[in-house]
Amino acid sequence: MEQARSLFPPQQAMGLMTDFYELTMAAGYFSLDHNPKAVFEAFARTLPQNRHFLLLAGLEQAVHYLLNIRFGKEQIDWLKQQEVFKNVRKEFWEYLAEFKFTGDLWAVPEGTPVFANEPLVRLEGSLLECQLFETYLLTTLNIQTLVATKAARVCNAAKGRPVVDFGARRAHGPHAGILAARASYIGGCIGTSNVYAANVLNIRPIGTQAHSWIMSFDTEQQAFEAYAEVFPDNAICLIDTYDTIEGAKRAAKLKNKLKAVRLDSGDLVKQSKQVRKILDEAGLADVKIIASSDLNEYTITEMLDRGAPIDFFGVGTDMVTSKDAPALSIVYKLVAMEKDSRMIPVRKFSSDKATFGGIKQIFRKYDDKGNFKEDIVGLAEEDIAGEALLKQIISKGKLIIDLPGLDAIRSYAQTQLKLLPKHLFDLRGNAFYPVILSDRLIEYNKQPNEQGG
Amino acid sequence: MEQARSLFPPQQAMGLMTDFYELTMAAGYFSLDHNPKAVFEAFARTLPQNRHFLLLAGLEQAVHYLLNIRFGKEQIDWLKQQEVFKNVRKEFWEYLAEFKFTGDLWAVPEGTPVFANEPLVRLEGSLLECQLFETYLLTTLNIQTLVATKAARVCNAAKGRPVVDFGARRAHGPHAGILAARASYIGGCIGTSNVYAANVLNIRPIGTQAHSWIMSFDTEQQAFEAYAEVFPDNAICLIDTYDTIEGAKRAAKLKNKLKAVRLDSGDLVKQSKQVRKILDEAGLADVKIIASSDLNEYTITEMLDRGAPIDFFGVGTDMVTSKDAPALSIVYKLVAMEKDSRMIPVRKFSSDKATFGGIKQIFRKYDDKGNFKEDIVGLAEEDIAGEALLKQIISKGKLIIDLPGLDAIRSYAQTQLKLLPKHLFDLRGNAFYPVILSDRLIEYNKQPNEQGG
Repeated sequence: MEQARSLFPPQQAMGLMTDFYELTMAAGYFSLDHNPKAVFEAFARTLPQNRHFLLLAGLEQAVHYLLNIRFGKEQIDWLKQQEVFKNVRKEFWEYLAEFKFTGDLWAVPEGTPVFANEPLVRLEGSLLECQLFETYLLTTLNIQTLVATKAARVCNAAKGRPVVDFGARRAHGPHAGILAARASYIGGCIGTSNVYAANVLNIRPIGTQAHSWIMSFDTEQQAFEAYAEVFPDNAICLIDTYDTIEGAKRAAKLKNKLKAVRLDSGDLVKQSKQVRKILDEAGLADVKIIASSDLNEYTITEMLDRGAPIDFFGVGTDMVTSKDAPALSIVYKLVAMEKDSRMIPVRKFSSDKATFGGIKQIFRKYDDKGNFKEDIVGLAEEDIAGEALLKQIISKGKLIIDLPGLDAIRSYAQTQLKLLPKHLFDLRGNAFYPVILSDRLIEYNKQPNEQGG
Repeated sequence: MEQARSLFPPQQAMGLMTDFYELTMAAGYFSLDHNPKAVFEAFARTLPQNRHFLLLAGLEQAVHYLLNIRFGKEQIDWLKQQEVFKNVRKEFWEYLAEFKFTGDLWAVPEGTPVFANEPLVRLEGSLLECQLFETYLLTTLNIQTLVATKAARVCNAAKGRPVVDFGARRAHGPHAGILAARASYIGGCIGTSNVYAANVLNIRPIGTQAHSWIMSFDTEQQAFEAYAEVFPDNAICLIDTYDTIEGAKRAAKLKNKLKAVRLDSGDLVKQSKQVRKILDEAGLADVKIIASSDLNEYTITEMLDRGAPIDFFGVGTDMVTSKDAPALSIVYKLVAMEKDSRMIPVRKFSSDKATFGGIKQIFRKYDDKGNFKEDIVGLAEEDIAGEALLKQIISKGKLIIDLPGLDAIRSYAQTQLKLLPKHLFDLRGNAFYPVILSDRLIEYNKQPNEQGG
């Protein structure tokens, strides 16, 4: 009998959490004794539609991978059986059995707003070890940066009203839901419905009640009263199961025990106004109105513009899948390599996918008020005015900084977002922020192509 | 120092892999001694844009959850500390410590094409235990069904040419990449670049080489020759790093050692024709052309219509994120409940989100040639001609069938897809398949609403 599996990878299989070509190339580099020092950088080629900045997130999981990547015996035995490896030097398998990352990691801190074509992460080490890191780094940066960015937009649209992640069921699997809870908290959400994420990340768990609660009682009134009996200080009533207006009137009968009502369908603007009136007339001006139902930054903006008296938003699907832009093109490219005892820049010229060579740094400039003014991308060795955003995190395979906790990342992110030019929160269109390449970087990349011959 | 974490949940935390309201409701049901027998069903409210069927996938992971959901001591201690639970009956925590699912699971087999408003999964048990299952069931069904459906469309567009999952780096995190590899294999892909998925699911691992391989050698020619030296029977050359036409000529110098070339940028139709000519003129008619670069069913159809001589497609981002439809609205609703020793239908009336009560079954009818003709959704107890699609998988908490292996699911799915009316593969628009509600189901739902009063 086939056993049902969760497909969460065990620790000893972390080495296999990569693309197959990373391992064939690694075997090739090893077999050819072609393993010079190398530098790779990750950057976003372009910003997705309707995004004018990215809120960087996901680094902690990439750091975990770098510090913990191992190849277990069982995994190595399986790799050896793959026909493609039959001509590989036998010592490669011993090398993998002992493999640990021994290089350096530099990165822009999580929670920093960044832009296209800026180096976000830099890995320095042997060509082979840096190569293996590509896939996992990109998958964790791509999803968390997408969701943190989306959450920042949603929270900005909510104009200070609390936003909670309700997306666990629509995220791309259970682990994606946890990553989305983390990223949306960085982006500004105040809590999550995802219990494991709340537990492990120390985020406030938040929930109301489902329609099944209401439907399981003989009457809606009984359902509300039963809930208030068990949760006397947290009676939130979902009022749209049968008829929202009648539901509001029934909830109002709970009087002082009622904390909030939730609307989950229909015309939320119209209903929230009607419900507010019912609550106010019942002397329940303190009772909050929570809205959910496929919300996003566009619908929230529209509802608030139309005067919807909504106090609190539960946002799921659109935020955790970044539905209007569900993929991000952060890529990871070789930018420099040791040759004849010096580091030389390397680059590719592929149509629409050309890259800039050289070890780079972002220098961020601020205006008089401390707001972001412009970024210069230059060579790391250049002496350019501005804050150097890439900081060293790992040296020779060892963590050399205290990784920030999630609350510290969130509060840093929220401070940073306030320094962004306001037009970068535009819901649609193209809003511009200056990212300038330094003269030396441009000059450096005019050197004749040493390769391709 | 904060420790870096992967956020893969340990076994003892599986009980927390749910939405917070599932646990507050569970505590409420328990405390009120309100825990009648209940039946929940999962169904898709609507199909996403440009989808005319869904290829159901993800059930195995849901079954794993049902069979393995547990609450560890540490997790229960954490829950107890949450303020909302302060009035809950103390015995609830002992109940959770011993919790195991003891009900029944019925489901449509993975790899079956299904439609909106059809019951895909049915859970029968106590109200409390069925409630807890909602979030995890939906997250695993939603993502895998999205990706399996997208893969079926992509493979159909490729008209028999092999398609491989190249999406690990753009999936919504590392676990989403594994789920996407599984689902895309069910949908028709022949392999994956995702090494762990290949290892654990016994899918063929497939990879070529990255631009970094090419760039790390002094010349492109040396890079190709070095690769062929280590992988003499698998020399696939990525030829677009500097100049695709020159790259093709250099690859052709490998003569009989060359197995395939890969194009990853630019005008793939024009380039594939030029490259095919170069290879043919070098006497290398057997050398295959592989294409990648943000491919999907729309671009593949267009390239093949324009005569692109491409033999093999690597598809990543668009498939593993189901980019043009990255979310699916499979929902899970209470449909029946025990009252006065009989099961009664329950339903909600929310605007645009009303549900049908009653324990249902799908009866699929076939035409003379064995193709799908129409589906009748009726009450499970009805005697309707057609194949009953929901089968029992778990009885009283125990698995009662041999779960099919992944290859069996894939081959069943591929056979099923051949029985679908051809117009359901239309790339765009609305293509219709008849899903008819039985007279008795309609009649059953005309009963006066017993609730809401």
